[in-house]
Amino acid sequence: MDQDVAVSDLSKDRLRAWLRILKVTRMIEAELRERMRTSWDMTLPRFDVMAALSRVSEGMKMSDLSGVLRVSNGNVTGIVDRLVTDGLVERRAVEGDRRANRVVLTPEGRVLFDEMAAVHERWVDELLSPIGAQGLETLRTRLGRIIDRLEETNG
Amino acid sequence: MDQDVAVSDLSKDRLRAWLRILKVTRMIEAELRERMRTSWDMTLPRFDVMAALSRVSEGMKMSDLSGVLRVSNGNVTGIVDRLVTDGLVERRAVEGDRRANRVVLTPEGRVLFDEMAAVHERWVDELLSPIGAQGLETLRTRLGRIIDRLEETNG
Repeated sequence: MDQDVAVSDLSKDRLRAWLRILKVTRMIEAELRERMRTSWDMTLPRFDVMAALSRVSEGMKMSDLSGVLRVSNGNVTGIVDRLVTDGLVERRAVEGDRRANRVVLTPEGRVLFDEMAAVHERWVDELLSPIGAQGLETLRTRLGRIIDRLEETNG
Repeated sequence: MDQDVAVSDLSKDRLRAWLRILKVTRMIEAELRERMRTSWDMTLPRFDVMAALSRVSEGMKMSDLSGVLRVSNGNVTGIVDRLVTDGLVERRAVEGDRRANRVVLTPEGRVLFDEMAAVHERWVDELLSPIGAQGLETLRTRLGRIIDRLEETNG
């Protein structure tokens, strides 16, 4: 009986911890979204696409870009169209495949992304400042264990 | 110089911690979404609306319900319509205000929600099982500090 109570308490604690993870994620995302909007008229999906492109010099196919979006049903075409209009990315034909395009950052896109990434890092540093070096390490380890377990189960 | 390096490392650690929080949130949400879909043909927005309604016996106005959704531009009307069709909630006129409606759980909705909530708690318990009682406590405290600070800043 005592053990049942303890198990049930732990389960309630895990539910509360999950709701808190969810709340932190939403609050930080809302804050970052608002700051990006007012600083550069930038959205999180467009920033995520630029971040993905910044890591690969040869660009990415549209089909690979959809995987980097936070929202699974995000409209990649619309996002890339807007970035093209703003001169931040461009579509390049893939040699030997007339139907395929690669999307690459333009030099202007690279400059803006580097600036945004540096400021974004400072914002995250500020928003997470209540957690010190030791706390970050245990947080990363614990969340890493959850991720590993989920990847094992789903792999 | 040494201090600059240390500060910069901490900032990178916070960015990595944030990306990990984001990843855990997305993975757990995806897992819960998939399990809800296969178990009850239920979506997270509909579950969230039912959860909000389960906490208030007198129901909620449509305008208050939009605040409980994870996605800010979520279509509350569509979600409630579907729940009405499934017989899980109903719209009740508000006495003295002909244009206002309150949305309340039906008895069937209450029974299903109680079942789903219990199973949902078990799933979260399982997904977060790599974290023990002590880890949950420090996780909640640390995330709580971030939330408090954000609420202070924005309040």
